[in-house]
Amino acid sequence: MPRSAQPTDGSTYPVTARSRARRLHKRVAYERDAVHAVLDAAPICHVGYVIDGQPYVTPTIHWREGERVYWHGSAASRFLRQVEGERVCLTVSLMDGYVLARSAFNHSVNYRSAMVFGRARLLEEPDAVAEALRRFTDGLFPGRWERLRPMTPQELKATSVLFLDIEEATAKTRDAPPGDGDEADHPVWAGVLPLETRFAPACPAPDLSAGLDLPEELVHLMSSGRLR
Amino acid sequence: MPRSAQPTDGSTYPVTARSRARRLHKRVAYERDAVHAVLDAAPICHVGYVIDGQPYVTPTIHWREGERVYWHGSAASRFLRQVEGERVCLTVSLMDGYVLARSAFNHSVNYRSAMVFGRARLLEEPDAVAEALRRFTDGLFPGRWERLRPMTPQELKATSVLFLDIEEATAKTRDAPPGDGDEADHPVWAGVLPLETRFAPACPAPDLSAGLDLPEELVHLMSSGRLR
Repeated sequence: MPRSAQPTDGSTYPVTARSRARRLHKRVAYERDAVHAVLDAAPICHVGYVIDGQPYVTPTIHWREGERVYWHGSAASRFLRQVEGERVCLTVSLMDGYVLARSAFNHSVNYRSAMVFGRARLLEEPDAVAEALRRFTDGLFPGRWERLRPMTPQELKATSVLFLDIEEATAKTRDAPPGDGDEADHPVWAGVLPLETRFAPACPAPDLSAGLDLPEELVHLMSSGRLR
Repeated sequence: MPRSAQPTDGSTYPVTARSRARRLHKRVAYERDAVHAVLDAAPICHVGYVIDGQPYVTPTIHWREGERVYWHGSAASRFLRQVEGERVCLTVSLMDGYVLARSAFNHSVNYRSAMVFGRARLLEEPDAVAEALRRFTDGLFPGRWERLRPMTPQELKATSVLFLDIEEATAKTRDAPPGDGDEADHPVWAGVLPLETRFAPACPAPDLSAGLDLPEELVHLMSSGRLR
């Protein structure tokens, strides 16, 4: 049930009972670009699923290609085996800072989050799995796949790749100072304590062969300001 | 169904069908101290819950007191209203770095996570809500509650505090170089790209009254290495 105010050019996700925000509308976006931006910025996601009525939330690394979001893991994992075909909610969140106001009520956080709904599907074909893992690896670390010791058939068999096609999604963001200017005369410090996540210097493996310097694409990633 | 190897002194959570790890046992801990340490280190959590068979995962700030984990929000929130009495899974995750091995299969991440199970309960008494919010605020920013413009009855009414008593929980951590020393002669860079989250310099509110410097407890928090 899309809202009548929604554009019909496909640039936004449908607004349904599941995804419609009840509150704080100014923080909510249904635009595909807004959702994609948060999905692509966050290094990990949290996948929510239900087994026998019990919710589970599992952290994992995701990657996105168009309207499809992938994740992977061991073929022996309960999470991956039992979630196939089921409804999932995949949420990413970046905590950008504490917002300290003059009243407890107006305290808040600055953040970027996206909540994505769809059904988990399993990639079946070994070739498709290998190709997805290549895109995953090279998406994080360009050109790395070709330099790695090739994957064995046993390793491929032990690895599951799942995906969902985004049915509905929302992005929520807050990026502002405290919103209580009408109480600015109350004598307490107010402002934002920003949190930022960045790369620390690389730690070479203790047994790294001599002469293997950090490759350029990793230097580039670590200095890019991005987390992936 | 606790494993027979479990201590019976109460220092660990019960290991059940819900919480028992199927894989990678060396990364898993059932000790209360291990779970508490991760809960207390992470600035936000992800709460998973089920409404009409649909899983939802909502990010929020949590706080812990003993075996009770709290979170809060607007009394008008669907998340808070519909989750009361229901089973939830509250997960916290800290992504500490990418682990780059010589094969795609041995790539990993360093992380700390905790997964906690319980039923969501609503704090009913306004005095208990106010007291919980005071502990929440002062837990993050010691001494701040007393300096704030006091909460009004309307604000208190508009704020819900929920909690769960931990029934079962697991902590999972990885903090190591790549585990493929047997392939160290493959000529590709291997090691860890660490990610770290820290405070950036505080941003005073644009309308902050003159003479209000960043108070000592916030200076202390921001230089502590902790995120909360």
